[in-house]
Amino acid sequence: MKKNLTLKQIAKELEVSVSTVSKALKNSEEISEATRQKIQAFAKLYNYKPNNIALSLKNRKTKTIAVIIPEVVHHFFAMVISGIESVSNQKGYNVIICMSNESYEREVINMEMLASGSIDGFIISLSKESQEKKDYHHIKEVINQGMPVVMFDRVTREVYTDKVIIDDVLATQEAIQFFLSKERKKIAMISTPDYISVGRLRTEGYIRTLEQNDISVNEDLILRIEDETKLTEQLENLFDTQDFNALMAVNEIYAVAALKVALRRGIKVPEELNIIGFTDGIISQHSTPAISTVKQNAFKMGEISAKLLIDKLEADNEHEHYITEVIGTELLHRETTSL
Amino acid sequence: MKKNLTLKQIAKELEVSVSTVSKALKNSEEISEATRQKIQAFAKLYNYKPNNIALSLKNRKTKTIAVIIPEVVHHFFAMVISGIESVSNQKGYNVIICMSNESYEREVINMEMLASGSIDGFIISLSKESQEKKDYHHIKEVINQGMPVVMFDRVTREVYTDKVIIDDVLATQEAIQFFLSKERKKIAMISTPDYISVGRLRTEGYIRTLEQNDISVNEDLILRIEDETKLTEQLENLFDTQDFNALMAVNEIYAVAALKVALRRGIKVPEELNIIGFTDGIISQHSTPAISTVKQNAFKMGEISAKLLIDKLEADNEHEHYITEVIGTELLHRETTSL
Repeated sequence: MKKNLTLKQIAKELEVSVSTVSKALKNSEEISEATRQKIQAFAKLYNYKPNNIALSLKNRKTKTIAVIIPEVVHHFFAMVISGIESVSNQKGYNVIICMSNESYEREVINMEMLASGSIDGFIISLSKESQEKKDYHHIKEVINQGMPVVMFDRVTREVYTDKVIIDDVLATQEAIQFFLSKERKKIAMISTPDYISVGRLRTEGYIRTLEQNDISVNEDLILRIEDETKLTEQLENLFDTQDFNALMAVNEIYAVAALKVALRRGIKVPEELNIIGFTDGIISQHSTPAISTVKQNAFKMGEISAKLLIDKLEADNEHEHYITEVIGTELLHRETTSL
Repeated sequence: MKKNLTLKQIAKELEVSVSTVSKALKNSEEISEATRQKIQAFAKLYNYKPNNIALSLKNRKTKTIAVIIPEVVHHFFAMVISGIESVSNQKGYNVIICMSNESYEREVINMEMLASGSIDGFIISLSKESQEKKDYHHIKEVINQGMPVVMFDRVTREVYTDKVIIDDVLATQEAIQFFLSKERKKIAMISTPDYISVGRLRTEGYIRTLEQNDISVNEDLILRIEDETKLTEQLENLFDTQDFNALMAVNEIYAVAALKVALRRGIKVPEELNIIGFTDGIISQHSTPAISTVKQNAFKMGEISAKLLIDKLEADNEHEHYITEVIGTELLHRETTSL
């Protein structure tokens, strides 16, 4: 792709805001004559070509928000969507959802398709592959054109924008600390590979809590699930080879799968094994025994993401000012923990 | 809304195809001079105004499919989306998803927004409210403009288009017949209100099977859940007041909720109570005991819906020929039925 001069680059060069550049190029009378001339001359000199994104962004509002998520099979993402829909519909915005299916390429294709004119802004949670590749040029490009983007849950420090997350390290520490307070020190951790930000942070919370309590970390007790079709097989192997009396899982599917393997082996839950999962979804609620969990407030995460985006869309002036909102979590005891 | 003359109406009046009208109005040389003149004269006489939908449809391909579904919290819809994505991506199409949130108004808003230029065709499953109102003008309008629409699962006879369904009556009959073959004749049915097509058909399958076996239908054994937040409460009441040794539920959330109420009461499943649900999702698979279910092949339903739509989009000539594809179901025995 030929690299074009962006609004942002012009703004940086001339030490003015992106908004000023945009308005000056449209000859808006909000901008002083002198500044307009300077910016227009600069743009002409460097052969600046406004692209579709910038044009559609600045010229019309579609009142539509695009959400790009890895998948909808996990209840967590379905609940975030519900939260986004709730706030957006209330404020008169439509919501369009695209799936990246954990693929970097599909994430890029979807963003490009949507950014080319049909929406006002993005809410995105990164695909596994984008996190693995650490390639976020597609998101940066959209932001550079002045289109607001809010990231949630699976975020990256490399993109400077509004973010909504939970404190994954702290939430996990609270759960692990609970096990330790009950003298359960042999704790298994069912996580994702480290390139998934939330998995890495939760594993970090697990390790940090053990270290703070002077318990040595046994790497064999940490399962990083690369391929979910082999989840049960890997769990069976963990139960076969390791000895533990507590188990933490980074999502509810891993938690319920571990519970099922334990019950099939005649292990008494919670007497012999305590289990805490993440995500307070229908699986955790309806399983027997019901699973204790770190409640992530996915619905609230969606609400806040939509609110941040719409605030940016409706702001009179653009500040280059971004916030990261951390949603509180809650350790919810049900039937898989002994109190 | 002012009623405009559509391509389809012109086609009907002049006894030619919609495609011919469309091409004639664009003065395409594929159409004979005489036909073009006749159609153009007719359109002029009746002040035909091509609208956005028709223009966008005929003038460009976006290679994007829109899916409108009631919600994503039920695993069934999440799996249909996966099937749609799979075929679409393979054929180079993007997929955009919008939620109606069971609201008629949101269904209409979403269809209008998307039809105004950003997509090539629709795949839709009706919202509860549209089925209750029996108002499908928004879907008919899109079809009248020549934009292909495929309906799945929650469909209606009132719209003439391609459909993908399961035989809900037959699938339920098979499950009820299984109970009867095991001498379980006191069967509870947890369904939806009758205005939801799939709920009505499944209730019909239940009633028909009992009648065919000369068993009188006890209406008190049929629960029609209007408000899902009161699901457990209504189930508790059913268990309090009725006597039954088998239970059929029209989705897996109802099935797992019933299982949970039964287990809490110390009822042995499957010995004292057999349960069969619908939808083979993660809840049915992971609950303990795992729930026997009518497997709907949601993924396949999505694949076929996408295939039908893309075939229409890529067909050289438009026939006014629609099919209803019935997907086979399968009664999957797990741990809540006694064999």
